[in-house]
Amino acid sequence: MNKITSYDSINLEYIMETKITFIGAGNLASQLSTNLQKKGFKISQVYNRTKPVAKDLAEKLGSKYTSDVKKIDRDVDIFIVALKDSAFEEVLSQINFNNKLVVHCSGSLPVSCLYPYSENTGVLYPLQTLSKQREVDFNNIPVFVEANSIKNENILLKVADEISDSVAVLNSEKRKILHIAAIFANNFVNHLYAISAEILKSKGISFEVLKPLILETALKVHELDPEKAQTGPAVRFDENIISSHINELKNFCNYQELYNSISKSIFEHHQQLK
Amino acid sequence: MNKITSYDSINLEYIMETKITFIGAGNLASQLSTNLQKKGFKISQVYNRTKPVAKDLAEKLGSKYTSDVKKIDRDVDIFIVALKDSAFEEVLSQINFNNKLVVHCSGSLPVSCLYPYSENTGVLYPLQTLSKQREVDFNNIPVFVEANSIKNENILLKVADEISDSVAVLNSEKRKILHIAAIFANNFVNHLYAISAEILKSKGISFEVLKPLILETALKVHELDPEKAQTGPAVRFDENIISSHINELKNFCNYQELYNSISKSIFEHHQQLK
Repeated sequence: MNKITSYDSINLEYIMETKITFIGAGNLASQLSTNLQKKGFKISQVYNRTKPVAKDLAEKLGSKYTSDVKKIDRDVDIFIVALKDSAFEEVLSQINFNNKLVVHCSGSLPVSCLYPYSENTGVLYPLQTLSKQREVDFNNIPVFVEANSIKNENILLKVADEISDSVAVLNSEKRKILHIAAIFANNFVNHLYAISAEILKSKGISFEVLKPLILETALKVHELDPEKAQTGPAVRFDENIISSHINELKNFCNYQELYNSISKSIFEHHQQLK
Repeated sequence: MNKITSYDSINLEYIMETKITFIGAGNLASQLSTNLQKKGFKISQVYNRTKPVAKDLAEKLGSKYTSDVKKIDRDVDIFIVALKDSAFEEVLSQINFNNKLVVHCSGSLPVSCLYPYSENTGVLYPLQTLSKQREVDFNNIPVFVEANSIKNENILLKVADEISDSVAVLNSEKRKILHIAAIFANNFVNHLYAISAEILKSKGISFEVLKPLILETALKVHELDPEKAQTGPAVRFDENIISSHINELKNFCNYQELYNSISKSIFEHHQQLK
């Protein structure tokens, strides 16, 4: 990763007049467009296949909107594609981008997946969990950039630098690994929160009581390596506790299995470290 | 859970003169004894089977210490047992507690496991991940209390209330479930952090970049239900991404399996909610 400290001669004034169209109006599009607009970028149009979804976001931004790919305005500077990966081909193949800069925000797809649609392509990947219900400040979100050319890379670095304090260039291969790591640290972690909430609920205990533990668990690895922060019965392979817990989870078959496999994984991980 | 708002006639002055001996000097004993001492309790002795470990903590507290169970001083008011569950029987059966109040801090063991050793028994269970390297403020830590009698319950409520703003009575059965939920929300979550750190390291990427995501993931469930906070490929069962990620993890066999089983669990969980 190259931490960016200086830029070439691209003019900020030019960038700030940049008109952006969003292809997609989901969680990511919603948060990214709002943050770009706050920094002075002009969001000119929002496309979404579901009209009310496009309309909702467009009204928030004061932009035009459409649910018809044929009506996507070509007179903009950057198209930001914020679709789920599986929708890329179907949607993008119907749009004439006029070789404008087309950028996607996917962790898993390489920049080259955009090559069929434009001669100017790039990636702007914000590493964060984004939901419509919860506004986040992009300043603290690491944003990773890639492009098909140095010129486009510099444009995207400039854009990213306007919204985030932590911007770096990262190639497609490394971004994929970063995305996988993020899935473990976010998607999977959140699922474990959901499981613990469900287990507590079965005995009428409020999820509220776990919140200080959840926060401290996250804060702890800001100071200690996760390996050094590990506590609990699995790391010392306390078989009595483990088997009594698995027995206690008999009404949650799937969670019995997860309890067992994650405990095993913790123990094996720490055996290797010894 | 009964949130405690009032007490019976136990005298605070009496409590503050209470002398406490710690059986065990690990992470929990270290943090709990320090916090009790800060609030004015007198930690009179620390026992640990490894002398330097007992000595370390005792010196921090200005207490006596021993590694010989036969030299544990009986002239105290409360014994706090902070041993791993599997060591309880071996250690406690060698001590004559003179029917003083004997309290353990285990999530999984019932209060009745102390009945063979004293007529006055209880549990003081702080719901937090405690490491020696990282001091935590007990004020924000929920502490759960149980005892063999109302009198002992009231003593422990009083003690707990001195160190924490969030104290409740919880029976052994519910405490066990709470402990299991905490293992998912802390031990297992921390292991996922460790996996993500290891995956990143394999491509030379610093764990640092994940920290804002980790913190936001934890903060998000302070506002939204974990189910509503869930994002990512598993919840929509995006098979292309999932299989491409599993393929990418080919050098981490164990993590391929975890990726697969947690993704399945997320998908099934959300299918049930529909």
